[in-house]
Amino acid sequence: MAAKLYDLELSGNCYKVRLLCALLGVPLEIIPVDFLSGAHKKSPLSDLNPFGEIPIFQDGDLVLRDSQAILVYIARKWVREDWLPTNAEELARVSEWLMVAENEIARGPNDARLHDKFGYKLDVDQARAKAARVLGILDQHLATRSWLALGRPTIADIACMPYVALGHEGGVPLDGYPAVAAWVSRIKALPGFIGMPAI
Amino acid sequence: MAAKLYDLELSGNCYKVRLLCALLGVPLEIIPVDFLSGAHKKSPLSDLNPFGEIPIFQDGDLVLRDSQAILVYIARKWVREDWLPTNAEELARVSEWLMVAENEIARGPNDARLHDKFGYKLDVDQARAKAARVLGILDQHLATRSWLALGRPTIADIACMPYVALGHEGGVPLDGYPAVAAWVSRIKALPGFIGMPAI
Repeated sequence: MAAKLYDLELSGNCYKVRLLCALLGVPLEIIPVDFLSGAHKKSPLSDLNPFGEIPIFQDGDLVLRDSQAILVYIARKWVREDWLPTNAEELARVSEWLMVAENEIARGPNDARLHDKFGYKLDVDQARAKAARVLGILDQHLATRSWLALGRPTIADIACMPYVALGHEGGVPLDGYPAVAAWVSRIKALPGFIGMPAI
Repeated sequence: MAAKLYDLELSGNCYKVRLLCALLGVPLEIIPVDFLSGAHKKSPLSDLNPFGEIPIFQDGDLVLRDSQAILVYIARKWVREDWLPTNAEELARVSEWLMVAENEIARGPNDARLHDKFGYKLDVDQARAKAARVLGILDQHLATRSWLALGRPTIADIACMPYVALGHEGGVPLDGYPAVAAWVSRIKALPGFIGMPAI
């Protein structure tokens, strides 16, 4: 039986899960969530995830929250050491960028998009400043590398790409970050790649 | 040769690394960073970590940033499957809480403390509201469990505890969160535990 994803098409965090499954050929049952009516904040979904957020991932009796943790699960469940190695150095390298997705990218380009596209009340100037900072660091990092963590694509790239590529919906386009734009293009060229609206 | 930690005694993120090494009996060379003069934002430290932050962890030629990623490295390098299992379900469970440390706890009790104790300019009311939300979720979660991710202590507990226990320095005490307070006490009772100022 395929694992289930409680999903919103416009969510970059849900898209990460769909994208990794597509790249790895992992079957996935998509369950659309009525986000506008706040279904994710009410029972039964809030019983599955007390943080009141999606994605929620269900594989048999196992229920997981947080897009980065779900990527970790999928890569390990399907024993894709290429996408998530478990030796100390490489797992730590991938983890560094999972944390950038969870922190700097979430509070930068993701927050800017939440403000512009979904009307969230937050300090959009601060979000754009954080976005510029992390995009500058990413651009310098990717100027000499093809992929974020290792010499090949890993879940670090899948975790970080969506909200970077969606930044233009929050007033944070990739103009001026050529190495970042080239990295997004490399991900789009991976066999099995799927897009989402605005990517 | 012992690994090196570029350290600030008052940083909960640096403390996590010191604490895990103490609990695991891993030798660690502490290199104090002159944080007040901004040494972490200048060369040579900013060459090691372009994010301009500490902790920075150095083991031979390997340099790592981000406290959560460093915990992952230490647990794997010293092959402590008990503290960080690598099977899909348990690694994902631990990862869920590493992400809470990186996101909700950082933007909640950690931000509130940065405002109150270190004079950071940020929306402290929002930080306290986020702190109350995550502490409520933690308290409910820990009401029926001894440890965050698994039936024993893991790096998830080490990642999440410091800024929760330091919350009183940001106007976020643990009054009203008895299960959280009991969990902090359980961590403090672990063999080899070390504290830091205000914990």
